[in-house]
Order: sequence, then C-alpha cells, then structure tokens
Amino acid sequence: MLVRCAFIETYKTPFYCNNFSSHSTMSIYQATTSAPVNIACIKYWGKRNESLILPTNSSLSVTLSQDNLRSTTTARADPSFAADCLWLNGKVDPIKPGGRLHTCITEMKRLRTAFEAANPDQPKIASFNVHICSFNNFPTAAGLASSASGFAALVYALAKLYALPQTPEELSLIARRGSGSACRSLFGGFVAWDMGSDDVTGLDSKARQVAPESHWPEMEALICVVNDAKKGTSSTSGMQRTVVTSALLQHRIGYVVPSRMADIESAIADKRFGDFAEITMRDSNQFHAVALDTYPPIFYMNDVSRAIIAIITEYNRLSDQPKAAYTYDAGPNAVIYALTPNVREIAQLVLYYFPQAEKVVIGGQEVKAALPEGFNEAVAKRWEVGSVKGLIHTRVGDGPRVLSDSEALLNAQGIPKVLA
Amino acid sequence: MLVRCAFIETYKTPFYCNNFSSHSTMSIYQATTSAPVNIACIKYWGKRNESLILPTNSSLSVTLSQDNLRSTTTARADPSFAADCLWLNGKVDPIKPGGRLHTCITEMKRLRTAFEAANPDQPKIASFNVHICSFNNFPTAAGLASSASGFAALVYALAKLYALPQTPEELSLIARRGSGSACRSLFGGFVAWDMGSDDVTGLDSKARQVAPESHWPEMEALICVVNDAKKGTSSTSGMQRTVVTSALLQHRIGYVVPSRMADIESAIADKRFGDFAEITMRDSNQFHAVALDTYPPIFYMNDVSRAIIAIITEYNRLSDQPKAAYTYDAGPNAVIYALTPNVREIAQLVLYYFPQAEKVVIGGQEVKAALPEGFNEAVAKRWEVGSVKGLIHTRVGDGPRVLSDSEALLNAQGIPKVLA
Repeated sequence: MLVRCAFIETYKTPFYCNNFSSHSTMSIYQATTSAPVNIACIKYWGKRNESLILPTNSSLSVTLSQDNLRSTTTARADPSFAADCLWLNGKVDPIKPGGRLHTCITEMKRLRTAFEAANPDQPKIASFNVHICSFNNFPTAAGLASSASGFAALVYALAKLYALPQTPEELSLIARRGSGSACRSLFGGFVAWDMGSDDVTGLDSKARQVAPESHWPEMEALICVVNDAKKGTSSTSGMQRTVVTSALLQHRIGYVVPSRMADIESAIADKRFGDFAEITMRDSNQFHAVALDTYPPIFYMNDVSRAIIAIITEYNRLSDQPKAAYTYDAGPNAVIYALTPNVREIAQLVLYYFPQAEKVVIGGQEVKAALPEGFNEAVAKRWEVGSVKGLIHTRVGDGPRVLSDSEALLNAQGIPKVLA
Repeated sequence: MLVRCAFIETYKTPFYCNNFSSHSTMSIYQATTSAPVNIACIKYWGKRNESLILPTNSSLSVTLSQDNLRSTTTARADPSFAADCLWLNGKVDPIKPGGRLHTCITEMKRLRTAFEAANPDQPKIASFNVHICSFNNFPTAAGLASSASGFAALVYALAKLYALPQTPEELSLIARRGSGSACRSLFGGFVAWDMGSDDVTGLDSKARQVAPESHWPEMEALICVVNDAKKGTSSTSGMQRTVVTSALLQHRIGYVVPSRMADIESAIADKRFGDFAEITMRDSNQFHAVALDTYPPIFYMNDVSRAIIAIITEYNRLSDQPKAAYTYDAGPNAVIYALTPNVREIAQLVLYYFPQAEKVVIGGQEVKAALPEGFNEAVAKRWEVGSVKGLIHTRVGDGPRVLSDSEALLNAQGIPKVLA
C-alpha cells in the first residue's frame, strides 16, 4: 500500500508533536509509545457483554518489563491521509467498520473532538485520518498474547498524539474495547481490572493500579515458551463457549473470584509471596478447569505444560511456602513468577528437564541445569531439546512509555519505515 | 507361601459347594465367580465418609461384557486353613486388619453367621478361614481399573460360597466398602450408585440397576489403551484432595450431578443415544475439570487423550446428534461408547490417527484406517505406532456369573493353581 503524504501548514504544537521539525513551517502530528505485556494471576475468562467487552469477573495481573517484551506504536494524524490505516508487524491490518480497531480509533477521535471543543486554541486534527504503525518485539510464533500490549500502545499513542488530558484509568476504558485484558496494560506494577456493574455504558469496568512496580521490585518472571503443534481455540470464541456451556463457570464468577481478588490484593500489599503464589496457581488451574468443563472442551495446556506444573509443585514442596508460581493463559506457555533470590535455582531446574539449544544467561552468568537438594527427580521425564523452545527472563515493569522520534515507526511521509 | 490343606468330614452341601466330590465323604466349600468392569458415565469423585466409602454424589455406569474383561475369583472356606489368605494375579495380597479386603471378608462372614443362626441345619463354616484367589484377564499395565471388578467378584464369590440369600443390591453395600465403584459391578446393563443420605450406617448408598443389558444391546464400547509414561495420582488420595481443595466440586455435587443423573436415566430409558453421549462427555470433562481445580492439580489425561477428544468432537460435528461418546476415568485411556452401526467407522477413524502394530478385527472383519466423508483431518496429528497401544472392542454386558469347578483358581488343596 502506497500512501502519499502532503505536508500542510498548521500550528506548531511541540507539546504533543514529537516529530516537529523546527526549520519547517509545517507541523507533523505524531506520537510514538510502547506498552507492556501483562500476565494475569486472577484470570479473565468470560464476557457479560460482547460488544462493550464487559467481563463476567474482575481480574488482576502483573505488568512485565518493556525492556524485554513490548508493543511499540506510532500514530500520526494528517489531513492528506486518504483513510485511517494501520500496519501491524509490517502488514496492513484492515480497520473493519464496527470492529475493535475501529471502535478504539473512533473513541479516541471522539475524545480529541471534545478536547478541541473545550480548547478552541488547539489545532483541529480530530477529523484528520490517522496512520498507525505497530510492532511487537516478540515473535507471534512465541504464542504470547500481543493483543493486550498492542491495544494499550495504540490507545496510548493516540492519547499522546491528541494531547488528551485523560488518565490511564480513563484510557483503559477504551483499550478494554480493543481487547479486554489490554486495559490492564495501561499501568505498570500490579493491576486490577474491576468488572464494574454498569452494563449500559461499561464506564466502571476499568483498570486500577493495585501497586506500582516499585512496591515489589523483587518480583521476577521466567517465561517458558512451549512448542505446540496445534493452534488452540481463540480466546474470544473459547470464552463465549464457556459462558454458554460450562456448569461450573457461574460458581467461579459468583463465589470464587471475589474472595480471591481481595486475598491477592492483600498478599501484594503485604508482599506475602507464598499467598500470592498459591492464589495465582489455583486461579490458573481453575481457569483451565472451566475451559475443560466447556462443551466441547477446550484445552490450552499440553504434556509439556503439565510437566512444568509437576516440577514447580515438587519444587514448592521443598519449602514451607511456595517459592514459585506457575500460570498459563490461553496457550501452553508457562509464566513462572518468583522472587529475585530464587530465580536462578528455578531456571536451573527448568533447564534440567528442558535442555536448551542456546546458552541461558541470568544476571550475566550462564545458567547450568541442576536439581535442588531433596528434589524428587521422578516427577517428570527429561524432555528433548526444543520442547521448551525458549526461556525469557523478565521482571515486573512500568506502564506505557512515550518514546522519542528516533524510535518512530513511520517515516517522514507517514508510511512504515519497514515498507519504505 | 505354602498352605497345607487337611480335608475334614462335614455335611454334603452341593447347593453351594461347586467343587463337591461325590465319591468322597468330605465336602469342599468353594465357589468360583466372575464379575465385570464398569465404566462410569456420571463420575464418582469424592467421599463424604472415608471409612464407609460414602460418595459425595450419585454416579451411573455401563457394565462391560465379561466376554472381554473380567475378574475371576475362587473362594474356599476350610477349617484347616491357618489364616484368611488372598492371592491376586498370582501374588499374595496381604489382608491388613481394618483394611478394605479385611472389611469385605469380615462383613461376608458376618452375613454367613446370621444365615447359620437363622438356618440351624446349615453347616457352620462362617468361622473357617478362607482362601481367596483372584485373577484379572486384562494386564494391570493396560491401566484399566481392576478394583471394581475385583471386589465385585470377591464379594460375589463369598456370597455363593456362603449360600447367602442377599440380593445383588444388598451385596453392593459390601462391595462398596472394598472400592466405591465396585458396587456398580454387581449388576449388568446400566447401573446407578445412589449416594444415599444415611451417614451413620451407609445402608442406602448402594447400586441399582437402571436397565438390564437386554434393554439396549446395541450399546458397544471401544477402549483405547493409551501409553502413559507417568503413573498418575491414585484415585483414593486424588479424590480426597479434590474434596478438601477444589472450589468447584461442591457446585458439581449440589447442582450439576443431580439433574444429570435424572437426565441420563431418562436418556437410557428412551434409548436416546445423542443425549446419553452428550451427558457422558460433559460429565467426563467435568470430572477432569474438578481434578484440575484441585490444589496441587491432578491430571489424568495426556496429549493422546486430548487428541482422541478432538477426533470424537469432530466426528460428532458431522451429524445432527453425537454418534460417539468419550469418557475418561482416573487415567489416560479413552472408552468410546457407540451404537453397533457406527462402531466400525469409529474404529477406522481411531486407526487413522493411531496406527496399530497388530491387525484390528471387528465382527470377523479387519478394520482399515479411514476418515469419514467431510471429516476435518487437521483436528489432530497422526501419531506413531504405540501411542495407543491397543484397542479393545466390547459391549454392554451382564452382572457377576457363577462359574463351574473347571474354572476354579484354587487346586484340590486350596492353593492357587498357578502356584501349585
């Protein structure tokens, strides 16, 4: 797709225009942001309203560091653009009318329109078409959900482009309509998505920061990227089927999640890792249990996932309190949460059962396969190289970032640099 | 273990002495029986009383034909026996005081004592020690639960040895205390285990025949014996952990199973296979869901089990009503229920994905791997030979049988023939 980009003269608005060229009389309305991946401890599974994306239960996640995993997005508004256009990982992603991308872009333009009405001195850019270019720094093949970080980066980039006064909480309402769990990627640290009760507007179904990343910086994560031959059920269609057919989901929604949310928030507030870990593992188990209680049943974990659970369970048996917490989203990858002093030991353990083709380095030192003292080796077999095809070590991280022009994904003409 | 067997003179009681030797003046008190395997459609998982083995919910099973799978037991009472003694598959199985074997044998002797008190003309054999020899015609390695058929054969053999007037329903109370699901193997056809409400005596927690095997003789079963590297959690300790830790089990017990029991009994009464199949598959899924909701979680199915579910789900998609029903007990083996006209097609399908080293023959004709018209081949990969290590084709069958002397497992001296 080739897009001609004509420059027009307008106000100089360096405040929100990252790419402002000072020796020119033309302004470029553009912003570049990045947003993090989040991995839920209390899982979101089920919508009570499909179009507003209102969940059947509240959820809570940990935001992972953007130093390792992030979506980066550049958004530009320009009167010369023939249409709204979005590129994802170098390919055009159609903005279908009424679709999720369309909803998010429309809502953000609506906010800009209101902002312009309230601030008549601001340039009138709400009516311009936008070019948006987004890129995930992790391969789709890794099976890590990119819709959360992707929609968070998109909404945040448009918010910066439009110089909007909305808070991250308010922006989370719009990210939620792109992909439910995207609302939680508007914050760093530990983030709740309160389900809310307003089914007409959904205005109380938004993200809330439970604690910033600075509260518990020892929280780290080891992601085991698991090989999977088969593509699983999409989470959108899967959760819909669970809502309609699972006899157990309503009990989870009504009786289990509310107390778990309170318990895990308290465990985070007091930095009680053992409780945090137990709740996280129980809720991962229960999410997969209601997926299995769906008709026909939905499986996301495979034999490798099961083996990692067996290994972490045995590892936790060795101490009074759990020192590691596994959690699985809608796929076979394990995310293992642990505190800094235990991460190396856990990585050694994972390597023992899942040898890697490439060196694994943590804290500048190579990790060698090893079993902790007293560990019952027989809980799993030793798998062949490639069963876990990669390990990603990361930590709790911050919310969306504004990036400099040098990191913009669109070139001077407003088309993706990778295509230019 | 060598046991000397001294013959003593007593009443000739050919009625209950199968092994009566007419040219002798000595009687041998002995009976040989066989009992069937049953595979539950509504699963038993959880005890409300561990010692009486009272379940947390009612269950329902199909009794499989003893022509294919059975436990055979010979029981003999003799005053010369130094102690009660039991051999299982050729090895001594210790009768621990207070253990399940001990409970069953003690209860049966108690019934004989009462019988002798009410019938003074009957020989006084209740106080004799017993020798019991039991044999399963299917290898333990097949991973098919043998405790149900084993305890049913044991209780039935003692009932015949003792010429007891108790009905199968009454005997099921004792078999239940050996292994909960054994109570359902006292009947052929379709059998409910009503949970009962008397927690002190457990006398209303017993088996009931919902329909005899003659009611629906077209009901057949294809057992896929799945290779599994790892021994799973024992069902006794597993279900206990589920009762203590699963947040979903109580909902299953209180709200889901009661209506499913009513629905499946009605489906069986009307021979509505589609409904029977859907309830069976949903309940298998839910049993494994509550196992997964246990902390730490319990897994019985593996990737092969999941593949068979995917294949049956796709097969059922091709018709208005399900034509096959999978169900999984506490292990990775699949039992597929289907009606006679569809069994060959299903076996062809299983063979397509799970090639067998040996010829598979159904109804005298070899089964060749094939996919039904319109089947989406991509729902599973084709596995290597040995992933499903055997197929057993069988049908709904009758309850325990009395066998002739020629099938006795004890020799003239009362010791196992295999050891003699």
